[in-house]
This record gives sequence, structure tokens and C-alpha cells, in this order.
Amino acid sequence: MSYFFKVKSLEEVMALREKFSPVESEKIPVFEAFSKVLARDLIAPRDMPGFKRATMDGYAVVAGSTFGASESSPAWLDITGTILMGDIPNFSIGPGQAAKISTGGMLPKGADSVVMIEHAEPIDEFSVEIYKSVAPMQHVIDASEDFAQKDIVLSKGTFIRPQEEGLAAGLGFTQVETYRTPKVGIISTGDEIIPIDEEPVPGKIRDINSYTLAGFIKEAHAIPVRYGIVKDDPVAIKTAVEKALKETDMVLISGGSSVGTKDFTVDVLSSLPDTDILVHGMSVSPGKPTILAKAGGKPVWGLPGQVVSAMVILKIVVIPFLNKLKGMDQQGRTIRIPAKLTRNVPSSQGRRDFIRIELLKKDNQMFANPVLGKSGLIKTMIHADGLLEIPDHVEGLEKNTMVDIILL
Amino acid sequence: MSYFFKVKSLEEVMALREKFSPVESEKIPVFEAFSKVLARDLIAPRDMPGFKRATMDGYAVVAGSTFGASESSPAWLDITGTILMGDIPNFSIGPGQAAKISTGGMLPKGADSVVMIEHAEPIDEFSVEIYKSVAPMQHVIDASEDFAQKDIVLSKGTFIRPQEEGLAAGLGFTQVETYRTPKVGIISTGDEIIPIDEEPVPGKIRDINSYTLAGFIKEAHAIPVRYGIVKDDPVAIKTAVEKALKETDMVLISGGSSVGTKDFTVDVLSSLPDTDILVHGMSVSPGKPTILAKAGGKPVWGLPGQVVSAMVILKIVVIPFLNKLKGMDQQGRTIRIPAKLTRNVPSSQGRRDFIRIELLKKDNQMFANPVLGKSGLIKTMIHADGLLEIPDHVEGLEKNTMVDIILL
Repeated sequence: MSYFFKVKSLEEVMALREKFSPVESEKIPVFEAFSKVLARDLIAPRDMPGFKRATMDGYAVVAGSTFGASESSPAWLDITGTILMGDIPNFSIGPGQAAKISTGGMLPKGADSVVMIEHAEPIDEFSVEIYKSVAPMQHVIDASEDFAQKDIVLSKGTFIRPQEEGLAAGLGFTQVETYRTPKVGIISTGDEIIPIDEEPVPGKIRDINSYTLAGFIKEAHAIPVRYGIVKDDPVAIKTAVEKALKETDMVLISGGSSVGTKDFTVDVLSSLPDTDILVHGMSVSPGKPTILAKAGGKPVWGLPGQVVSAMVILKIVVIPFLNKLKGMDQQGRTIRIPAKLTRNVPSSQGRRDFIRIELLKKDNQMFANPVLGKSGLIKTMIHADGLLEIPDHVEGLEKNTMVDIILL
Repeated sequence: MSYFFKVKSLEEVMALREKFSPVESEKIPVFEAFSKVLARDLIAPRDMPGFKRATMDGYAVVAGSTFGASESSPAWLDITGTILMGDIPNFSIGPGQAAKISTGGMLPKGADSVVMIEHAEPIDEFSVEIYKSVAPMQHVIDASEDFAQKDIVLSKGTFIRPQEEGLAAGLGFTQVETYRTPKVGIISTGDEIIPIDEEPVPGKIRDINSYTLAGFIKEAHAIPVRYGIVKDDPVAIKTAVEKALKETDMVLISGGSSVGTKDFTVDVLSSLPDTDILVHGMSVSPGKPTILAKAGGKPVWGLPGQVVSAMVILKIVVIPFLNKLKGMDQQGRTIRIPAKLTRNVPSSQGRRDFIRIELLKKDNQMFANPVLGKSGLIKTMIHADGLLEIPDHVEGLEKNTMVDIILL
């Protein structure tokens, strides 16, 4: 059986994310929420902070009592009490009065602002001089200033960073509903691949890809499941893919996607039930011989066997699909750093090129230094800090051009 | 007891990293190496890949046999065999000869290059037309081109990304020696703080900080250990700190570092054996009332109680110290995105200001939009994508200035 690629553009491939749905959701303790994705809107159950709160150490006052106060003509206020942290003050404040308060303390009734301790000087137990006027609500957070009851605080599809985890906890959510962390099956294929604990004879190579791909899956906050090394044999590959499809949410087959001597991935995928081959070849370099199938609703990838190609495709193409499975409403922020090219870079029209880049800082300017070396060399990925994306219609970029580098 | 801060600059504080040493190292399976830090140089035990390897599907040849070949005047070569993946070819190649080879295959003796399949057309079983000349070593990786035996492949102190994990595996390291993952103890203090599963009465606030700080510790690939909420009581705080110091590698005390009504952190830390107060106040906003002590060789931090201040200090100051404990030779890459300010930003001279920033992309230009709102408002950190650092000697920045934003 012989194939010629019906090559798809990068945009055509990325649009296929719509064909896949997020995994199911589950309730988890909020302490485990970091790096997960919200499966439903988080609604404020009450106002936050819920009371007028001081943001500085000082004196709670009625702002009007301080108007016109200055170093040369301070305002004199009566101290009516001290507010203890966590207490509800059992007194109120009127004009001409002040109460000692700490950051985070609750303002007494009547008080609308806080004079910073640096702008006040107690005269004795009962009175204080104020050297600077404050405006109403100055150094105070209002009862619903952070969130009002029923506000949508975080919406479905939000990736939970540390600050979102803290906010959910602060609102009293001991549990949150998030999408389950997807599992990603990794199958290495190739008669030349041997386990890492074996000594390779010439012609053989250790299984680098399983470990590299697994690392990227972990970095994307998903769970890699390795299915070992499978020989270039359609029956063996099919058995491994069927097992991985049963146990995981996405499957990566490393190697076996080129049109070389013994590449069976497409044949194997075509023979699975309920399976469409969506992509067989992309106009992307490196990584052209990439395969994507939808098998029983799950994405199955045939990745190029060369380690650098596999890494580029994983980072640029596969991870955004994984983020879709994770339930993210955006495909994750791709971080791009502007930098100045240190040399001319050739490129082919009609193809998206990704060039490995080392970032160098000199005299406050960031430089993008293309990493030379063949795409089979893993050392080029060790030296690379990022990737330069060259659009399909561009034939090459000149030295000193400003470019955006995708961080690796 | 009354304190006035001996305020330190950010640089003075960061230089104190030198006072702390990495945690001990351990051997771990290479599959668990992602996000750890190498504790000794990784030396190549042999050449890699270890044999001349094809980087394209095509024909292994002696380059000289193809010189001058073109579409109009192809070179004719004899096919002497097919190289199976993972096999050592049992024949050699001379001038005028070619052998079918797949990407990753081992070149036969005598061959020095590969003609891509796209530039060759087999005539019959025994001969092939070549339409393009190749140079020696073209489409071939040499036996030691990735690494030569005894090369330092990765040096001590390297943070292990997915590609470094793959490389270590590919070199046959089933185990690697890395620094142990540090544990970070988190103690919340304050009479106003209640557990997240309690309903706050006015004056009380749920324990946001433990969860936010824990999230950042996880993001930095360390292990947070929460020691719950401790009342504003020196004996209780001391007991908690002593327990945390026994069980973890660094301790964070949230709240209790200001000069407010009931802040005991410095007193408590001063009373511990073998402890120096290194920092009591930093010229940084937000986060001025930060405390750093060295207790039994371990860093103990008194962080501001306000959630935004605590987050900024954790991200900018504490995480680089954590990276030192993790054994990193660099303090981690701080990612900075250039963007154009959307409004004037005031700032005080003699103080490092960190302004929360929302990043907006419009017409291919990144804009830095300062997030307004008091530093006690957690929503300002939810809206923030990053922080703008304003140097000590600058009084403010004007709208449309190009600035670098530290990603959050």
C-alpha cells in the first residue's frame, strides 16, 4: 500500500481541535486545583472581604476630620479605642475621633478611612495628632470591593494558577469542579529502538523519544503512560494502540509516520473501528510526516521518529490539542520573546518552518541565534531556548530582522 | 519592643542567596527527572548516535558518485541492497553503488551520504537514477556528531527540561543524581484568619495565603507543607516555626511581619537558637515589611499578610532562593515580555516598585495595561498577567514607554 501525503497547512490542522471534546469533570480538593482547568463557573457565595478592611496600619477615622491637616497644622483626634485583629469593634467612630487599627482589621461603624501610622503621632493614651488628610475610602477595602455576592469570579475553562487556587479557597470552596487530568499514552515503534537499559550495538538507538515526550506531557500538566517499544509489525502496533486507546485519552505513536521502508502507522490506524485519518502530512518543517487520527473520539498521533521533529510537533501542534482535552477555553498562552536575528535564515515558501533558536542577551538587547545542526541531533534541542516560526509565504529572513521567539 | 526597619535594597537581599546551600542529592529514575536539577555532570559514556545514521529516507551512496547529477543528466547507480532498520548492513558500498535506506538506518561501510528519495527514481530492482548531487555527510549524522565519548553532556546545576530527560535516557542513564525536591513549610498567622471551611463573621477572613503560596511553590516544582493557622501568640508561632524547621527546608510565615499591633515574627525568630535576622524590611513595593532569617542554615521568611504583597515577594524574591536550595546554577529564567505602557505610572524614588500588569495584544503590538486597585484585592492578581519592575532611581514612567513585563 503506497501513500502520497495530502498535506495540510498548520492552520488547517489546528482547526481540527474542534473535533475533540474535553474529558469529563470531577470534584477535587481545592488544594489540588493548581494546574487543572475549571469545569464550571465559580460564583462568589458572598461579598469579599465582607467588611470594611484596613489596608494599612494606623488610625480608623472619618475622613472629614482630617481635611486640611498638615505638618504645620495637624488635626487633633480623640482615641476612642483599639481594634483587635479579627474582632468586630464594639464601638463606633464619629467626627473628631480615631481608633487604632492594623492592616486587615475591621473598621468600626462610622469610620470611612485609615490614616497611616507614619502620618500620625499619639500625644497620650487618649489623643493623636494627624499630619496628613485622607480621602473617604483611602487605605480601606470596601465590603464587596474584591467581589460582590453572585459575581462570576472565575469562568469555566480557566487554567488554575496559584492565585486562582488561593481565590477559590478564600471564597470558601474546599472543593472545586475541574476537568480530570488527561492521560497520554506513548508508544515507541521501530526495529532499531532498544530500551534505555540495554547497550546499543551499531544500528540500534536507545528510546529517547518516550522520555522526551513524557517530559513534555508532564510539563503540560497531564499524565504520560508509556507503552514501551513495539517492533515494526502491524499486528504488534495495532495491539499496543488498542490497549493505549482503552486506558488513556490521547495516544502518541513515535516513529513510523514517514513513507520509509517499514512504516505502518496509517495502515494500522485505518484498520481500527470508528477511526478517521484527519491528517497525513503537514506543510511544516521539521515534522512534515505527522499523522492525526480520531479513533473512538480520541486523538491518535503518528509523530516523526526523529527526536527534534517529534519535539517541535509536540510543542507546536499536539499540546494545544491536549489543552482542548484539559478543557481550556484558550489554547494556553504561547510565550513569544522579541529578539534580533543574528544571521540570515533560509526558508521554503509554502511551508511553515520552525528554526531552533538560542536566546542571547547583550547590551539590553535580546538576540536570536539560530542553532545549527541536523534535526536528528538532540543536542540542538538542548542548546535551543525557543523556536522561530517562519510563515508559509516568506522565503527567508534577513540578519537583524526583529522576530518573535516561541519559548521552549 | 519597637522596631524601625533597617531597610535593604532588592539587590542587597538577592545577594544573600549566597548564604544558603542546596539540599542534599539522591539518585532517582530518569523517568522522574523532569523539573529536578542535576547534582553532578552527566558524561557521555560513549559516542552518540554511535554509528553513521541516515536523516532522510533514500539511498546511501558515495557522494562522489552523484557529482554533476541533474534532472537532465541523472547519475545511474547499482542497487546493492536494502538496509533494514536496526540492522548492521552486511555489505559495503563503493563508487557507482547505492543501498536503500530509511531515516535512522545505519549507513553501510563505504557510504558517506544519503540521496533523498525525492531525488531518485528506481529503474528496476537493480538500478536507480539520481537527479541531484549530494555532498559528503549530507543527510547523515556522524557517529559522534551528537556527543563524543567523555563529553560533558549536561553540567551540574542544570534544570532538567523534557529534552534533557530524553537525552539522559538516550545515553543509557536509567538513574540520574539530582538534588532532592525541597519541602517548603507554610504557616498562616493572624487572629483574623480562619480555615477555609468556616463561614467568616465580619472581621474574619479565610486563609487565602496558604493556598496561594502553596500553588506558587508547586509551580516552582517544590513541595508545599501547610502548618495551618496560628493565632497571634509568640509561643504558638514559635512552636509552629520549630516544627516546620525540623520537617522542611524553608519556612514561610504569612502575616505578622509589619510593625502593626500584634506582629511577633521578628521577636519569635530572634528567640530561636542559631538564627540571624538577615532582612527586616526591603525598599520594595508592595512587600516592604518582608523578613528573612537564617535559622539552622535554613531560610525563614516573614511575608506580608496582604495577599498581593505576599505573592509579589514570593515570585520576585523567595522563588530565586528556593531555586538556590534546588541546586540551580542560574536562578531560573525570568521571562520578560516587551510591551507598550497604556498610561502614566507613578513611582517613588529610592524604592523598587512592582506594578501589576494586564497584557493586551492589538495590531501585533503588545500593550501593558496597569491593573488598578489596592494591593489587598486578590482580584488584581487574577487580572494580572505580569509585573512591571520600576527601578529605584526612576520617578515614574510615561504612557507609550516600552517596558519589560515579568510574566506571572
